[in-house]
Amino acid sequence: MTKKGSTAGDGLALRELLRVPGGKPMDLASYDTRKTPAGPRDKPAGLAAMTDLATPLADLQERLWAASTAGDRRRVLLVLQGMDTSGKGGTVKHVIGLFNPSGCRIHAFKAPTPKERAHPFLWRIKKALPQAGELGIFDRSHYEDVLVARVRALAPAAEIERRYDEINRFERSLAGNGVTVIKCFLHISYDQQRDRLLKRIDRPDKHWKFHVSDIDDRALWPAYQQAYELALERCSTPHAPWYLIPADRKWYRNWAISRLLLEHLSGLDPRYPKADFDVEEARRRLLEK
Amino acid sequence: MTKKGSTAGDGLALRELLRVPGGKPMDLASYDTRKTPAGPRDKPAGLAAMTDLATPLADLQERLWAASTAGDRRRVLLVLQGMDTSGKGGTVKHVIGLFNPSGCRIHAFKAPTPKERAHPFLWRIKKALPQAGELGIFDRSHYEDVLVARVRALAPAAEIERRYDEINRFERSLAGNGVTVIKCFLHISYDQQRDRLLKRIDRPDKHWKFHVSDIDDRALWPAYQQAYELALERCSTPHAPWYLIPADRKWYRNWAISRLLLEHLSGLDPRYPKADFDVEEARRRLLEK
Repeated sequence: MTKKGSTAGDGLALRELLRVPGGKPMDLASYDTRKTPAGPRDKPAGLAAMTDLATPLADLQERLWAASTAGDRRRVLLVLQGMDTSGKGGTVKHVIGLFNPSGCRIHAFKAPTPKERAHPFLWRIKKALPQAGELGIFDRSHYEDVLVARVRALAPAAEIERRYDEINRFERSLAGNGVTVIKCFLHISYDQQRDRLLKRIDRPDKHWKFHVSDIDDRALWPAYQQAYELALERCSTPHAPWYLIPADRKWYRNWAISRLLLEHLSGLDPRYPKADFDVEEARRRLLEK
Repeated sequence: MTKKGSTAGDGLALRELLRVPGGKPMDLASYDTRKTPAGPRDKPAGLAAMTDLATPLADLQERLWAASTAGDRRRVLLVLQGMDTSGKGGTVKHVIGLFNPSGCRIHAFKAPTPKERAHPFLWRIKKALPQAGELGIFDRSHYEDVLVARVRALAPAAEIERRYDEINRFERSLAGNGVTVIKCFLHISYDQQRDRLLKRIDRPDKHWKFHVSDIDDRALWPAYQQAYELALERCSTPHAPWYLIPADRKWYRNWAISRLLLEHLSGLDPRYPKADFDVEEARRRLLEK
């Protein structure tokens, strides 16, 4: 995680550079949303670097899946959060698009239904978790229950205060059950959001993505930033850290999240399982018929 | 659908060429599994043609999704069936990999669980259907209930006989509810299956895909072919036709299924919805803040 003006720590893993320390007050405005703290420095280099990541990512995903067929319970959960237009959907398209879709479990969380509201807030989250060997992706998540819920006072203040601890306990239990949790906050600037909303207004093929309420919501920008600061401060833990992704440049956002996935998957080092059959015998029998 | 020795009907849509007529006895052995009845004739051309399909497919998928946000209930269901190693998984990886994963709902059906067996055979199928705007993919499907169920006598013969009609009624109701059903039988030869199983035995990184029972199952090849012939004959209907995909050549299989998806999606001609807001007013308000 690099503040404005600091130099990129070349040689450090990206996960160290972008990691939110946690436990310390955050000031989101002090982070440059256009920064490229490590890796490719311009769009052509960024797109090329993405292409280079495709094969190793697909290879690691296949190993993770293969290992699960022999009892390895490990899996990965990528959590995407950010303001409207910050690129959660674009990340799924471009980053998750690099993976074999059969091993991905994607869930986009909307405003909770009446049935979901009748349950504890983690109920719907638990139902959408990745299975062993899978890459799970949450487009929005349980963090909405301390973000929009806080900003719009959708629950009593004391209840919302309790949720941070409950989230930390939940994520610790995930980690204990073999889930690698990677939480990415896609950080864009107020001006960048205006530009992206303008594009949705100006292009008829983007009108379906635009809602007049998106403009009203901009009045709540400071309250949302504050809610994000609290969530990052309180819930960036050793077992489930937050990563702060400078997201004004889409090509950098895509590369950075892909790179984070690579670092985590490499760290898991999943292995193809050993044959549970007699290879020579199988070959002989197969060639007989 | 082109029999051995027939010429490719250039100019005809692929869906007409590969469509199983239905209602007539099928002889799967008379179809050349290495044939390339239309389109690219060799692997380099096939891979290039796939690349060319990526953008139009993604565009049509986005339109289908966008239309659903304005109430269009249409969606697509791709059903993949075929013998072991016929390439169902490879199709998901390479063909569905061309699409935005967030709009795809993939389900791989395994042997039914005790809970699933306690319900009618279509129960688990109905739960996995694509929602409006989505591309659903079934890797195996309700057809297993007239394939493996028939070959291994997993249900009384009279019950299995009833299922063909039930499947036809079910698929007709899907079609009536805006689901475009595209059923692909990936047709490989007995020798091609041996070659693919051998590769799984010879490569340690493929061992996890191999089961000794795959060799035992080869003894049932003729019974399975017969069960497929019946399913194709009885369940290739105007509202949910079967397509016979020559699948010995992976690049052709991938291109053919991609092309079938393109033809169907183009036929649906989904449109971006019109703006439901005042464009000028929205632009003015946005530029104010």
